[in-house]
Formats: sequence, structure tokens, C-alpha cells
Amino acid sequence: MAELVRLPSPLVGLRDQRLEPYGVELLLKRDDLIHPEVPGNKWRKLRYNLEAAREHGFGRLLTFGGAFSNHIRATAAAGHYLGFETVGVIRGEEHLPLNDSLAYATSRGMVLTYLDRATYRRKTEPDVLAQLSEQFGPCYVLPEGGSNGLAVRGCAELTTEITTEFDVIACACGTGGTLAGIAAGLGVEQRVLGFAVLKGGQFLDDEVRRLQREAVGEVTSNWAIEYDFHFGGYAKRKPELDAFIADFSARHGITPDRVYEAKMLYGLFARIEAGAFAPGTRIVAVLS
Amino acid sequence: MAELVRLPSPLVGLRDQRLEPYGVELLLKRDDLIHPEVPGNKWRKLRYNLEAAREHGFGRLLTFGGAFSNHIRATAAAGHYLGFETVGVIRGEEHLPLNDSLAYATSRGMVLTYLDRATYRRKTEPDVLAQLSEQFGPCYVLPEGGSNGLAVRGCAELTTEITTEFDVIACACGTGGTLAGIAAGLGVEQRVLGFAVLKGGQFLDDEVRRLQREAVGEVTSNWAIEYDFHFGGYAKRKPELDAFIADFSARHGITPDRVYEAKMLYGLFARIEAGAFAPGTRIVAVLS
Repeated sequence: MAELVRLPSPLVGLRDQRLEPYGVELLLKRDDLIHPEVPGNKWRKLRYNLEAAREHGFGRLLTFGGAFSNHIRATAAAGHYLGFETVGVIRGEEHLPLNDSLAYATSRGMVLTYLDRATYRRKTEPDVLAQLSEQFGPCYVLPEGGSNGLAVRGCAELTTEITTEFDVIACACGTGGTLAGIAAGLGVEQRVLGFAVLKGGQFLDDEVRRLQREAVGEVTSNWAIEYDFHFGGYAKRKPELDAFIADFSARHGITPDRVYEAKMLYGLFARIEAGAFAPGTRIVAVLS
Repeated sequence: MAELVRLPSPLVGLRDQRLEPYGVELLLKRDDLIHPEVPGNKWRKLRYNLEAAREHGFGRLLTFGGAFSNHIRATAAAGHYLGFETVGVIRGEEHLPLNDSLAYATSRGMVLTYLDRATYRRKTEPDVLAQLSEQFGPCYVLPEGGSNGLAVRGCAELTTEITTEFDVIACACGTGGTLAGIAAGLGVEQRVLGFAVLKGGQFLDDEVRRLQREAVGEVTSNWAIEYDFHFGGYAKRKPELDAFIADFSARHGITPDRVYEAKMLYGLFARIEAGAFAPGTRIVAVLS
């Protein structure tokens, strides 16, 4: 696996006519190119966790996600390449045939199990974990989205790879871990702006604070989350989002993922066009 | 143990001249009388967790706390009476001789271990849990303060025991679990007011929301937390607090615990005297 991982991920400038009136520079941090089968920044989140799992003698990873979870895919892939068995605990009922994400996960050897929504909500509770442990034996347990303190530490490294000057990092927010890590890694006067990709995502503020408290012992004040660009909910789409993706793809030859990247980029362009950034601001948008 | 548990806990009216100008009625919910060695409402929090631990075949409980933690004491006592081995993971360095809380815990058979503050902060992370599991074997893991979804469910039962009409419940807030549970159990038009007993406790808002989301799937809007009555920090005291305790004890023959109950009562009287409650308001203050 290690030889397939490409770090630092490429940083590329983006020329986009729509930005010119605002004097804003935009660069893309191509975390989507880190690994062909571990999508986006997932490798950053998994890295120190997998080291810890190995160090403590675990041969099996267990984690949680919705049926379209990139984290489920990524854990299955990482387990396959690095020799861990993997268990995916999926929210809701089984639907057959499996969708692409879950079909991929099983093709990489992941065992899937399903929890009804009420139990899934309680997935960090000791009785639910005990039940899973009875069923699957000792497992290194990764949280939903892979966001924990070790993941935050891995994500903080993203900022150290950027050797050019910049003012703002923009990223999509699903569980808050990437944002928490980037914020912890930034220099003074730099900040990070997250775009929530799910509806009712206001709990992400709580989550980022919790993750920062656990990982670095303090909550930084250099981040904010925008909640107006979820397009109806997680993995939901709307015509204007699809049009944005098609247009972006035609302009730049890069097709942003519609679950995360496209919502972040759409929101970022909307904020730029609303005058939210002073002329001269240099923004790095993370594709992950 | 079951025969020592007194539920429902007594509800007693309190006549206090200081309240008369404000037309406010105050009753005390004596959760401190539930069990002689499981202080306060700890039994409510432990109850469903211990059932779950037994159901899943665990013979050992492991939990976390500071050196003065009532939850550590309570877990040691409950384990002793109900036949569980117990491990207490204590924040910071070992100080000998042990203070009263920890000496009590070891007298009830609890094994103590210590984590430095940086590692303790990461106590819910899988690598830290794996390390503890290597050291102590399979354990049913209770969070700090015992506050999890099953605890919230247990605390919600407090409200169902109160058969008289009331408007407000007041309680002390250490980890947010009691408040989260009471809020989930209240009827419409009732509300709960928490008093943070530690400094910098603003994270309790996040915690209560997280616990409610996990335990009942939604965040209720019938609660608030006051942050101005911590008296310098957790288990810290000040002369005016000591004076309040002595005076309360002389008036009512009840000596409020200075870590939790006294700060809550001091804050509650201050809020009443500031006119925060309309005449006719009936308040139940939880001694726990």
C-alpha cells in the first residue's frame, strides 16, 4: 500500500474567470490523488490509526457508516492492502443488490452487518459495542467517518505540505475531523472554512470542538462552518449542483465528487461571489 | 445491593424565608438518599449500564475520573455489591497517601491506574482503550462521570417519580448526563436549569446535545446551563460558598455537598433573588 500512497498530494493553481472580478486566488489541494482506492483524505485519517491497531496486535478493524460512506470503502481498501480483516457496520437495513460503495467494500473482503437507525445512533455506547464484539471478536474500532484524535493528527499534516503562502483553506465537512485537524495545523492569521455536506449539520460545530479538545487539548478559533450548501442532505443532489459539476468539469478537466467536493466548491464560489474574501486572498480548496 | 436502593427518592418541601419575597416554591429531590455508598444520582446512571454489562457477560467494569470523582467511588461500590471487578483510570499522577475518594474506591476492591493528562484527554480514542484492554483484559467501559446513553435513560426516570406539579428542575452539571436525561424526561412547558460545577465548562452545552442525540435522537430545547457559579473550578471552594453551606445546614439540617449541590443551590438562590423566576414558579432542586 505504502508504495501506492502519493504524499505530499499535488497543489495546483486554478484559473477561473469567475474569480477575476474578486481578486481571489484559488488553488486545489488534490488529496483525491493520494491513493487510487482510498478516496480523498481518508489515508490521512487512517494512517496513525492503522499504526496503532498494528502496534496493539489487532488483526481486525471495525467501523461504521451509511450505505454511501467513503470511509467504509477506504477502510475496506486499507484493510485489504495492509492485511487487516475488516467489518463494516452499516446504518439501516440491507438493500440488495448492494450499491457501488458496499459492493466495492465486500470485493475487498469487508464483512458487512446492519444496525437499525435507533441502535446505530447509539453505536458508541458500551452495550452496542459489546454486542458487536461478541459477534466479531476483538476489533480495533474506528468511529464513523474515521474522525478521531489520531485522524485529526493525520489531517493536521496536510497544512505542513503547503509550502506556498495562503490565507484560507476550504474543505467539505462530513464528520468534522478534517476541519478539526487542518485548523489545528494552521499558522497564525490563517483560517479554515468548512462546508457541511449534510442537512441539519449544526452538530458539526460541537464535533469539531470535541475532536480538537481530545486531540490537541484546546479549541482553536480559526475555523467556521457554512451550513447553506447541503443541497437537501447527504449525497442528495439538485439540478444547479449537477450543472455546476458539469461546468467545472468542462472548464478545468476535473470532475468534483458530488457528495463532498462539489458542494464545497459550489459554496466556496458562492461565498467568493458574495464578496466574503478581500482582494488578494489566496484560498486552498481541499479535494478529498 | 438492590435492597439498599431507595427509589423513588424522597421529595421534600423547603421553607426558606429568602424565597418568600419572590413567591417561588422550592422542593428538594433527595437523590443523595438513594444509596448510602453510591452517592447521589449515580445509581440512576449505572443501573442500565450494569444490566448491559451483565447481559453481555462482562465481569469487569473500567471507568475514568479525576482523583475526587464521585463516579469512581460509585462504580467501586456498585461493583463490590453486584460482583463486578472494577478498574479506575485516574487523571494525572498518583499521590500517596490516597485521598478519601480513592482510598474508599480501593477499599471496595477497585484497581487504580493513572494516565498523564495528555493521554487522559484521549481516553475515548481506540489506541488508548486498546492499551487499557491489554493491561486489564476485557472490560465494560463506562465513560467519565458515567454519562452515556444508558445513563441518560436512567436519569430520565427521575422526572417520572415526581407526581406533584412543578415548572423547573435545577441540577448540578459535571458531565451533562443528568441534565440531558432530565430534559428528555420532562413534559411540555417544564424545563431544566443546570449549574456547571467546573470552570470553562462551556463544552457542557456540546456534551448535553451529543448525549441527547445519542440517547433519544433529538436535542430538546427545554434546558440551559448557568456558568457563573463554579467558584474557581471543580472541587474548588470560596469563603462565600462555605458560608452558604453553613447557613443552609443551620436553616434546614441538610448539608449540601460542596462539589456539586452547594454550587447548584447557591446559583439557584442567586438566580431567584435576581428575579429570574416568575411568582408562583415551583422548582425542584436535585440533590445528587
